[in-house]
Amino acid sequence: MKYTEMTKEQRQAEYAALTEKFEGLKALELKLNMARGKPSREQLDMVMGMTEGMTRPEDYLSDGIDSRNYGELCGLPAARRLFADILGCKPEQCFVGGNASLQLMYASVAMAFTNGLAHSEKPWSKLPEVKWLCPAPGYDRHFRVTESLGCTLITVPMTSEGPDMDVVEELIKDPAVKGMWNVPKYSNPDGIIYSDETIRRLASMKPAAPDFMLMWDNAYCIHEFDGEFVPFADIISLCAQYGNPDMVYEFASTSKVTFPGAGISVMATSEANIAYFSKIMGVQTIGYDKMNQLRHVRFLKDREHTLELMHRHGQILGPKFHAVLHALDEEVAPLDIAHYERPHGGYFVSLNAMPGTAKRTLELCREAGVVMTGAGATFPYGVDPADSNIRIAPSLPPVEELEQAISVFCCCLRMAALEKLGV
Amino acid sequence: MKYTEMTKEQRQAEYAALTEKFEGLKALELKLNMARGKPSREQLDMVMGMTEGMTRPEDYLSDGIDSRNYGELCGLPAARRLFADILGCKPEQCFVGGNASLQLMYASVAMAFTNGLAHSEKPWSKLPEVKWLCPAPGYDRHFRVTESLGCTLITVPMTSEGPDMDVVEELIKDPAVKGMWNVPKYSNPDGIIYSDETIRRLASMKPAAPDFMLMWDNAYCIHEFDGEFVPFADIISLCAQYGNPDMVYEFASTSKVTFPGAGISVMATSEANIAYFSKIMGVQTIGYDKMNQLRHVRFLKDREHTLELMHRHGQILGPKFHAVLHALDEEVAPLDIAHYERPHGGYFVSLNAMPGTAKRTLELCREAGVVMTGAGATFPYGVDPADSNIRIAPSLPPVEELEQAISVFCCCLRMAALEKLGV
Repeated sequence: MKYTEMTKEQRQAEYAALTEKFEGLKALELKLNMARGKPSREQLDMVMGMTEGMTRPEDYLSDGIDSRNYGELCGLPAARRLFADILGCKPEQCFVGGNASLQLMYASVAMAFTNGLAHSEKPWSKLPEVKWLCPAPGYDRHFRVTESLGCTLITVPMTSEGPDMDVVEELIKDPAVKGMWNVPKYSNPDGIIYSDETIRRLASMKPAAPDFMLMWDNAYCIHEFDGEFVPFADIISLCAQYGNPDMVYEFASTSKVTFPGAGISVMATSEANIAYFSKIMGVQTIGYDKMNQLRHVRFLKDREHTLELMHRHGQILGPKFHAVLHALDEEVAPLDIAHYERPHGGYFVSLNAMPGTAKRTLELCREAGVVMTGAGATFPYGVDPADSNIRIAPSLPPVEELEQAISVFCCCLRMAALEKLGV
Repeated sequence: MKYTEMTKEQRQAEYAALTEKFEGLKALELKLNMARGKPSREQLDMVMGMTEGMTRPEDYLSDGIDSRNYGELCGLPAARRLFADILGCKPEQCFVGGNASLQLMYASVAMAFTNGLAHSEKPWSKLPEVKWLCPAPGYDRHFRVTESLGCTLITVPMTSEGPDMDVVEELIKDPAVKGMWNVPKYSNPDGIIYSDETIRRLASMKPAAPDFMLMWDNAYCIHEFDGEFVPFADIISLCAQYGNPDMVYEFASTSKVTFPGAGISVMATSEANIAYFSKIMGVQTIGYDKMNQLRHVRFLKDREHTLELMHRHGQILGPKFHAVLHALDEEVAPLDIAHYERPHGGYFVSLNAMPGTAKRTLELCREAGVVMTGAGATFPYGVDPADSNIRIAPSLPPVEELEQAISVFCCCLRMAALEKLGV
């Protein structure tokens, strides 16, 4: 029965039953974590092959380059080819970095502030205000990059096809709007894939700012856990086709392919942008860890071989997502107190609770030993105006623990809803 | 016979003889490089042991932390302990980064511009001018970091005891002077060690700027190639002792201990600075490559074991420096056309040619197939007002090639001097 259709007495009885269950769960002194998109130990163990072999000096030669020494700021040619193969762009459009694509994102926006971009009139730090579009719910670390650098964050509503493009097309008429975050495939946290039409409208935008940055974080571009691999557009070609060759900056990494702490990352963009970016990056480093780049090249080989590995990751992740969705379907859906997405890839399930109950739900979870991503984290400045969105990250715990954790979560979600409706 | 004491006829005869030699050298079509402080293949081969073993999941556990996954922004505790042991500071004062200490230097100064430091009134990008002290000759990449971020670079003369402290103490009275570069041990390029008195005066400075950054690049802190290890001061304690706990930022790396392209780096500073820095660094990355940090910990073990390895590096480097100094002693010293330092560690020999002849010398070298660090590179903005300083980097070529290269260099240096004196 839907909670909204219950009488107060029914709600009170329900709340009493849940409270008893909650106290029982608390007594278990659980310590469970569904806060971050962390791969599980099983996934890490699966890729240990990357640490084997490659112990002779000659193993570290690639295209005649000794990857052990200084040099190759834009990355080992073989690593640039690997990412180009995966992303469907050209090796010359790839700048292969260290273990964090976030660092490349930060570096590119920071560069706009300290030095300006190729099409900038002046460094952004000299402008009175820089505004940034943040489709929300979105990724808290994205928002924090632009917040930390001093941007005014503007929320753009997400739809099931991606950001609301009518809103975006209106906002970019303001020349102070300098950029926009995107996770086009298995968006964080909604897990939706931008529609072809959304992508076309983004690629063909004509922002008033000549140095607008379309940030394209393709973090989950090959991260299916259900069904076949879903092809994605080469956004760099697409933007060029629409007369915006230098507008887009695409990012990807192997953080959820090999090792989260020790993968390699890429920024893919026009060759003109690569040349400009390299000049500034060359000030801060002589080059990234090419030995690790080469380990990745040897281990992942090419797109096809990488997709096979991703399929095996999917086989570990799939059951975890199914467990979460199954519990939600059973324990939450019939009550009409939340709706949630059913992703086929990525690392999250996004749930919208009854407005005004997200914080309370997570507070109860914490009491019962289940840590979740903070309520509000998926919105700019960490404030969800509806106090509704909750990001569930099922990847880290083993399935049994996850089942416990999601059971705690469902209980807390229901209690918070009942409290809101009045008990 | 000194060139300055020669008659014009004698100089002409000498120049004719050198020109003949030069043509002979050119005919060899050499391709030699003494431009950069790159370790040699022999040194890299020596540390390949670091790539062996560590193929089981449990090998990557350290203090209960799975180094393969996300986390530990400030570095693996074991890596922080290793650097603290080497630098003589506390593990809590160490922020262990990726493969480039330059990146940590850039990040710390860039942070001052984008966000300000703990003691800053506002971000430096909001100030009309930021000035920076550059002891010269110095390291071109240092100068470029502060130049790229928009600082006005101010040259401070180097003495055999370090930067001229009378000049420094005068300049820091200007509140726009926000920082200073230093390579305190085996300075780049002079190879001198700052005297105790210079270090004391630096640590006890009272700059007008409350957020002055004493940049302490201890790049060659354990890099002897002649004689015993020379102990160095814990600059962090020393600054604290003089009431400047948050003034100094010390840097080091294993770029010339293990692999230049794939080492690990550290920024050591007060715990208060570490806390502040981590907040900003946490915006740009979830953490650095801890698997590589752990590989280093297992391979280097501790200070003593690392010093043993450095001794073996020294045995490879020593003969190269001796070859350079021997050639200079034989072919240049008697002519009184240049003076040069005799370092016992580090990666460079710094030579001051007759004023107005550095560029011409290197132009001739290039013609004969020997690439050197560009003339002027050791001065702010790449301009040596005396056109005199030349940085010789003998580490990369094998000894036989190096002997050829330095012989070419001596020939060119002599020709340039004679041209200057008139032939």
